[in-house]
Amino acid sequence: MALIVQKYGGSSVADATAIKRVAHRIAEAKRAGDDVVVVVSAMGDTTDELLDLANQVSPKPPSREMDILLTAGERISMALLAMAIANLGVEAQAFTGQQAGVITDDAHGKARIIDVKAGRIHQALDEGAVAIVAGFQGVTEHTNDVTTLGRGGSDTTAVAIAAAIDADVCEIYTDVDGVFTADPRIVPTARKIARITYEEMLDMAASGAKVLGLRCVEYGRRHGVRIHVRSSFSGHTGTLVTDEPQPALEGEGTMEQPIIAGVAHDRSEAKITVVGVPDVPGTAAQIFETVAASGVNIDMIVQNVSAAQTGLTDISFTLPAADGQRAIAALDAVRGAIGFASLQYDDTIGKLSLVGAGMKSHPGVSARLFGALRDAGINIEMISTSEIRVSVVTRADQLDDAVRAVHTAFGLDSTEGEAVVYGGTGR
Amino acid sequence: MALIVQKYGGSSVADATAIKRVAHRIAEAKRAGDDVVVVVSAMGDTTDELLDLANQVSPKPPSREMDILLTAGERISMALLAMAIANLGVEAQAFTGQQAGVITDDAHGKARIIDVKAGRIHQALDEGAVAIVAGFQGVTEHTNDVTTLGRGGSDTTAVAIAAAIDADVCEIYTDVDGVFTADPRIVPTARKIARITYEEMLDMAASGAKVLGLRCVEYGRRHGVRIHVRSSFSGHTGTLVTDEPQPALEGEGTMEQPIIAGVAHDRSEAKITVVGVPDVPGTAAQIFETVAASGVNIDMIVQNVSAAQTGLTDISFTLPAADGQRAIAALDAVRGAIGFASLQYDDTIGKLSLVGAGMKSHPGVSARLFGALRDAGINIEMISTSEIRVSVVTRADQLDDAVRAVHTAFGLDSTEGEAVVYGGTGR
Repeated sequence: MALIVQKYGGSSVADATAIKRVAHRIAEAKRAGDDVVVVVSAMGDTTDELLDLANQVSPKPPSREMDILLTAGERISMALLAMAIANLGVEAQAFTGQQAGVITDDAHGKARIIDVKAGRIHQALDEGAVAIVAGFQGVTEHTNDVTTLGRGGSDTTAVAIAAAIDADVCEIYTDVDGVFTADPRIVPTARKIARITYEEMLDMAASGAKVLGLRCVEYGRRHGVRIHVRSSFSGHTGTLVTDEPQPALEGEGTMEQPIIAGVAHDRSEAKITVVGVPDVPGTAAQIFETVAASGVNIDMIVQNVSAAQTGLTDISFTLPAADGQRAIAALDAVRGAIGFASLQYDDTIGKLSLVGAGMKSHPGVSARLFGALRDAGINIEMISTSEIRVSVVTRADQLDDAVRAVHTAFGLDSTEGEAVVYGGTGR
Repeated sequence: MALIVQKYGGSSVADATAIKRVAHRIAEAKRAGDDVVVVVSAMGDTTDELLDLANQVSPKPPSREMDILLTAGERISMALLAMAIANLGVEAQAFTGQQAGVITDDAHGKARIIDVKAGRIHQALDEGAVAIVAGFQGVTEHTNDVTTLGRGGSDTTAVAIAAAIDADVCEIYTDVDGVFTADPRIVPTARKIARITYEEMLDMAASGAKVLGLRCVEYGRRHGVRIHVRSSFSGHTGTLVTDEPQPALEGEGTMEQPIIAGVAHDRSEAKITVVGVPDVPGTAAQIFETVAASGVNIDMIVQNVSAAQTGLTDISFTLPAADGQRAIAALDAVRGAIGFASLQYDDTIGKLSLVGAGMKSHPGVSARLFGALRDAGINIEMISTSEIRVSVVTRADQLDDAVRAVHTAFGLDSTEGEAVVYGGTGR
């Protein structure tokens, strides 16, 4: 008998038929003798519909009321799922984030979980019931106000509850079979990864792999929660995220083949180039302080070699394209003070990241990566590296070719095809 | 400066446009210097859509989860309304039933309000904000579970909050201009009633007038809350429900014209006739105990004069048509024990009720009522009377004619036409 947390995303509970299918899966686990806690997202497009309504009544809705509005989505799905399970003869009790004891700070729209007081969950389990918990939501400790956790919040809820009740595993159900060595829509020969470390998964997520959110993986790492990413549409084993290093795949783990987790890609970034920057100490710092003060996170940075005769240089950096206009406006406001010539904005870039703990001890990884891209005729615009990751920026329209070339060069291609659907579920 | 509770029903907040219109009205009241607490129902058909989803996943949804599901509707409308008000530059804070301190018993789906702990509402008002409260919902005192109050629950919420904060008036906004002397869809010359007593309003509501629920009026009567029923689509003064008797209308209040509040009608009842009942003591009691034990409320009763030669009689009673099959099944099960011959079921009846405190002292009311129906060629099948009400059962297809005839006979017809829409909003 195991204690299992299962999390189902919006696409897994998109309509009554989907909810009934998920209910069957939960009832099976319960009947097999496991104790089951279920965390559920809002149905399909509910959140988008609610956002649309909010925008119709107010151009800038207050964040506290926005959280009350959005949490209605999970109330609906959690209640329906509990009903569907009860209809199969298995007792189920639905709990809001508050009832489940999910305590957060008061940062509406992106609250962080402070504590999980799982008394009612334990009580439900002791009574032999399945506990259904609304994902994505919590409540502030003192004012009892409803909060939401932001993007990927339901995954974080699931892992936080798994940590609080010391579950054997936290199963994250999605519409793909697990974490793949690359996006199968781009690389049809991509392989499902059987096991991946928290660190590798964090780098994959930070590099654009959408299947798990950063905060969820980070929470899991910090509390040692075993996370099993799997499909709600099949019975296949998925990907286990733990602190145990992945086993060598066939043909890997030798001197020739460093252990690589996978190739992630990201099309959501843009590049800003600050042109004609006086090459004197402190100027770069001024630029990045300005951007940071506007609330924008910078990813990669390149400073060109200064042209000796002018004393001017160019500085390029990448950032989420969604924050592009904000950063441009902030920089424009200090153009005179810093003394640069102009700003260039480019949102037709793509980022490819190769992730794997194995590259720590394999100095040839970068060389092989660059060689593969050169052979495929793809130009590298920016480079950044960490202990277990190498990222490069290419033209957006070359990104798919780049991913395929790198995937092949590191021997990640599978010999069997696998039919999978790939796509994030938002929260 | 007054302290006002305003309640808006589902049709008043049916979409973003309607919500913005209501927001303007609330902002106006606030800017005029009043303290405003708003109670809001779910948007338009939200509740029906949620019920439909529940029925799709389970034929018999658990009532606790059903309440979680249904309360999502008010979360959406209250959050949107607060946003729309804030967008007009007036601070608004939205509160769930729980946050507003609405404590109920644990009868899911038809919970009763035990207490209102209005601390957060007072706090919001002290901060100069409009408090928006979700109608129709509360929370159990000890287990913190969400409950709903059943039909008309939002009206009851509004009156309960008005009582708790000692408001000057509780304004119930609806899609009609107030309480009318009859349904204007049937009687185009019906007049808006300026003032009506709690007792008269209770009898009107119990007799089929849908504009206010019984529980809301009863709560108002017990706590002395002045209720103002008015339209959210116009600025007209509506109907005031208080304990002060209504002023005489022109041509009324004299010896000739007893003061009549109005003519209510009800098409939702059915009649069951128990045929061939042994006319011995205790048999009628057995029949009505059987019906009561099945959870059905009986309205009117007629026992025919026993035919002396057979010792058998017939007993007819009316009940909500929705409970018809349940009552029939319960009676069928005891046919042998009671010894009656057969059951007849008739759901093509209508009930007309004449309501008015003035009839207490006017013995001629019943006679005038029966005379008007006789002149209109309408047969009376059953009669029941109370101190301030006379009700008769007619054929359903004669009910409209009956209402018009009685309305005219008691001098209630207005000389001016009035364009109004009439219809209940459910909760």
